[in-house]
Formats: sequence, structure tokens, C-alpha cells
Amino acid sequence: MQAKTMAVFNKDGKFQPHTIERRDPGANDVVVKIEYCGICHSDIHTARSEWGPAAYPCVPGHEIVGKVIAIGKKVKRFKVGEPVGVGCFVDSCGKCSPCKKNEEQFCEVKTVFTYNSTELDGKTPTYGGYASHITVKDKYVLKIKKGLPLDKIAPLLCAGITTYSPLKRYKTSKGKKIGVVGLGGLGHMAVKIAKAMGAEVTVFSTSPSKESDAKRLGAKHFKVTKTPEAFTSMMGKLDLIIDTVSAPHSFTPYLSTLKLGGTMVLVGVSPDPNSLDAFGLIGGRKVLTGSLIGGIKETQEMLDFCARKKVFSDIELIKPEKIDEAYNRTVAGDVKYRFVVDLNTL
Amino acid sequence: MQAKTMAVFNKDGKFQPHTIERRDPGANDVVVKIEYCGICHSDIHTARSEWGPAAYPCVPGHEIVGKVIAIGKKVKRFKVGEPVGVGCFVDSCGKCSPCKKNEEQFCEVKTVFTYNSTELDGKTPTYGGYASHITVKDKYVLKIKKGLPLDKIAPLLCAGITTYSPLKRYKTSKGKKIGVVGLGGLGHMAVKIAKAMGAEVTVFSTSPSKESDAKRLGAKHFKVTKTPEAFTSMMGKLDLIIDTVSAPHSFTPYLSTLKLGGTMVLVGVSPDPNSLDAFGLIGGRKVLTGSLIGGIKETQEMLDFCARKKVFSDIELIKPEKIDEAYNRTVAGDVKYRFVVDLNTL
Repeated sequence: MQAKTMAVFNKDGKFQPHTIERRDPGANDVVVKIEYCGICHSDIHTARSEWGPAAYPCVPGHEIVGKVIAIGKKVKRFKVGEPVGVGCFVDSCGKCSPCKKNEEQFCEVKTVFTYNSTELDGKTPTYGGYASHITVKDKYVLKIKKGLPLDKIAPLLCAGITTYSPLKRYKTSKGKKIGVVGLGGLGHMAVKIAKAMGAEVTVFSTSPSKESDAKRLGAKHFKVTKTPEAFTSMMGKLDLIIDTVSAPHSFTPYLSTLKLGGTMVLVGVSPDPNSLDAFGLIGGRKVLTGSLIGGIKETQEMLDFCARKKVFSDIELIKPEKIDEAYNRTVAGDVKYRFVVDLNTL
Repeated sequence: MQAKTMAVFNKDGKFQPHTIERRDPGANDVVVKIEYCGICHSDIHTARSEWGPAAYPCVPGHEIVGKVIAIGKKVKRFKVGEPVGVGCFVDSCGKCSPCKKNEEQFCEVKTVFTYNSTELDGKTPTYGGYASHITVKDKYVLKIKKGLPLDKIAPLLCAGITTYSPLKRYKTSKGKKIGVVGLGGLGHMAVKIAKAMGAEVTVFSTSPSKESDAKRLGAKHFKVTKTPEAFTSMMGKLDLIIDTVSAPHSFTPYLSTLKLGGTMVLVGVSPDPNSLDAFGLIGGRKVLTGSLIGGIKETQEMLDFCARKKVFSDIELIKPEKIDEAYNRTVAGDVKYRFVVDLNTL
């Protein structure tokens, strides 16, 4: 089965139409006609081989939404015509301890990532969502309630779950004070989700111009991090910080804004090491940790939460031929707050 | 009331006899005739103004054991003649949230540290354990069971509680695999306590010569950290790491030895920032945190645990006139594993 797609051919990072092969649906497979796919910063890092050499042709995209167009004969959970999502991975062993705990992203055998990975056979390449359709095992397909704006839901499949998972794990709720570092694709989702969970949100940003947006999205406080006052004014106040910044920065001033025993969760990966003073953790017994997307069960929970709370991504919808330009604008931080590729016209 | 002592007069770090004033015992005070005091690396940093300018004369020492020689009229918990200990702090507000949770080391008003601090009045200086006696509020005095080797117990008051607290907090027990980074004063206590809690201990050290000692102290495995094999051979194996090293080092290779969701606790404070790759925390959702001594209740629990399990420090007992030499040898890592000053002859 062929899928029309836009593929990165090589490291120059330019997109061009390319036809890839999708497998014919097996008994447990769902075939999805892709309607929208978000552009995640990971797509750019991967397509440009910034996280190690990519396998070309590379078809990025793991914020996929669309409709079911065919199902395998054993598939019971989905019907043709239903809206569905596909996130950052499409298979895992299903038997190891993390898989049994619904944390397939940490599968001890192999998490099959949606693109630039290989299937469990270790050789068949995976191709992502900048394409006309995709074939995925039913267990790894997410349900989306009918009647919702699918384009604005696409980014939830990565940016949404990446921020929802740590906010949930650390019991974000009414009365909690949450810091969000960086107001980009991940950051704007963190603000919306934390606010929807009832928390009081403070955004830390290098850009004073983002204050009005931060507040519109749900933040109560906005701190420009270029002055020490941003941190001294928040000393010991926060329960939890979600750090979405992927440029190198010191964690120490942020740790000072946490309460005794408070937690800072990294969800942005900077290419170079960051700086950390040990005493920033020891004094006040602060916790620094990271979080990696979420398992299928938690991703479904997040989609249901966002549907209930009407939490969607702020997006800029583009045609596939604008992907190059969108990549450059994403790298420059010039997007509010996620590009989504409209694949209906592909 | 006067106390004979050995005091640091100034930043040249030389000790010389000096007489300090101790307060006359109030209704809730206990006067302790000091018999032994451990030399903690913090003493050296402080006496030499390496952690900011010290207040001179400076009398270090917060690993204090001795016998009660007088009690205030309201003191019920202690009797004259009893063996007791005094640790890293001697007062706190007693009313704030951390104090109420028995974590006086994080008092929101003021933790009165045993030396180079001031009393709650904000002006009366505190002087530590390199002295003939000390006057302390009864609530901050620890009980020690009779008939135990007091000199080997002294280091428990800081090195013991510093390592016991995180080992306990993260539920060290039979079947758990614990890493200990660095085999010095703190490290050797971490090995002994983790072993006494039933865990399997791996020591990471830069010194191949420490292997036999590590194993004698209770470690099952010993890894020389100068080769990558030290880390690759331990990939994903440990539940918890206690990092006692106070020289700058990268946390990333150690994080790789933790299981999914495993925790690395810093108890050594390096003067310069350390390096950390965010992905070392995100992949496998590792936790990096710190721990600062322990509250009075937990310190008592630790002393009782060590008495029951016969866990004491390996020490080198010295006369007060050898303190200078002991400082230099401690800085050079030439001590197995804690110098303790014999103050009986002062």
C-alpha cells in the first residue's frame, strides 16, 4: 500500500514529495487517513540529523490526527470513519515491566518510535505523519471524541502528553503553584493544562513581549528571566516547575523558586550539558527530574481530559509546501504556538 | 561559664588554644562535657572561609559526643552522667511547618547551626565541639545508649545522619541495589548503613586502592570510575545512588546506572557547578536530588539504628594539637575514614 508523503531526502533538510510504502493492514491494524500533523521541534532535530544521523528518506511527524479508513479483522475498538490520533510511538514489546505498567515509552525491548525508528523486527523503517495515511497496531491508536477541532488536537499527541504527564504525576490541582519555563509549543500547553487542573501558573520567559499571551493562556504571573528579580521575587514559592527550554541554561535560579522538597521537571532537551550547583538541590531538598512523553493509557487520559476541559493547542495551519519555512520559523521561535500541517489536500 | 577550646582565630586556618564563653545553663539546657568530636569536611571549609567569610574566632565541630554534667531545672529527658550527642544544629524556631514536621534543618525562621552561626537572637555567636564542654537546649541533644564506643559514634552525628536520611527516605532494604559514589567519611558510612539495611552496595571510586576496604566495609561491587566500563557494566541496575563527592563531576554517567525512575542523591557539595545532560534525566525519568543532614527525631532514630546494628565509624583518634595536620590529611583524602579529636585531655 502506497502513501503519498513529503519526505526529507538528506541532510540539507529540504522537503520534497516522495512516495513511501505503508504495510497492508494486518488483523490488528488500523489504517488512518491523516488529516493534520503537528510540527514538533523533535521533527526538526531529527530531519536535520542534529540528534545523530537520521535514516533518509526521513518522514517526521508524531502529532497525527485523522480518520480510520480500514481496520484489520480482529480490531474491535475502532470503526471506519472515527477520528483517531497517533503519537510518538507505534509499537513496543508489550511484555516487559514498563509495558505492563502502561509506560511503553520505556519498553525494555524496543519502543518503536513513529518515525526514524524501525519496527520490532529491527529493520523495517518507520515513517511519520507528514503523509497521506499510516498503518498502526490498534493498541497504539488513540481515540478522539467526535466534533472537536482536529487540527488543534494534533499537537496534544506530543506537546500535550509531554506536559500533562509530569503535571499529573506531581498532583497539580487547585491551590498548587506551578512554574512554566519557556513559552513555546510545550510551554503554552503546560500553561493551559496546569490552569485547567486548577493551579496558579507563573511563566518564566526571556521575552517580555510574551507577557500578554502568557496571561491570555492562563498564567497569573509572568517573570522576565533577564533580571535576578524574576527569581528572588519567587523564592520558595512554587510546588512544581515544568522546564520546556531546550537551550542550555542554569537550573540553579529556578530551583531557588521551589518550596522545600519541590520538583523541577525537564521536558526540553538541550544539545549541550547544563550547569547545576549541587547546593541548589541540597538546600531545601529540591528534586530535579525529567519526563518523556507518556504511555498509551495516559495519552488517552490526557486526550479525554483536554476534550472535557476544552484545552486545545494554539496553532498556525499550513500547507505541506510551507514545511521548510515553518521549520525555520520554529527554530527562530516565531510561531504561536504550533505549526500544524494540513494533509487533507496532499 | 568558660570553656577551654581550640579556636581558629583567622583565615590562616591555624588552631590555637583559646577560651570561649558558654552560657550558664537555663531551665531547659543540658551542659555536656565533650569527650570526642569528629572532623567533618565542612569544618575545614568553614574554618578556612571557603564557604564565605567565617566569623572568627571560629570553633568548628558538629559531631559531638560526651556526658551530661549539669541540667536545667525543667530538663526531664536527661540525667547527669548519661552519654549524649550534639549534631549540626542546636536550635530552631520550633513553630514553622518544617519544624513541626521534625525537619528543623529547614526551619523557615532560623536553623541555629552548631558553629559559625548565631543563636535565635541573631547576634550571639555559636561555637562548636572542639572544646571542653557545650551548653545546648535539651530538645536538640541526642541520647546515646550506654556501653558503646563513643569515639566511633561521634561521626554519626553528621556523616551518619547525612547518609542515613536519604537511604531511609528512599526505602533502602533487602533486595535494593544501592550505589555509593566516593569512599570517604560520608561514603564509608553510606556503605555501612546501606549494608545494615540489607541492600546490595556498589562503590564507585577514582582510587583502585580502595577496593579491599570497600568490600570489608560491606560493598559487594567496586567500580573504578576512570573507565567507561564502570558505568556501562552497571547500566540500569541501581535503585538509588548516594553521591558523596564534593569535587565537580558530571552526574550523567551515574544517572545511566539507575533503573527507570531511580534516584541519585547528592550529599557532597562541590564549590563549582556540575555538569548535567538533560537527557540523562529525561530518558528513564531519573531523579536527581539532594539531602541535608536530618532532623532531631530522625537523627535519634539513626543513632538507635546504628546501636542496634553495631554500625560505627572507622576512625583515627587524634589529640587536639594534631588538628592542623588532620585537616591537611583530610583534604588530601588521607584518612580512614574520619578523624576524631579526643577532648578528654583538653
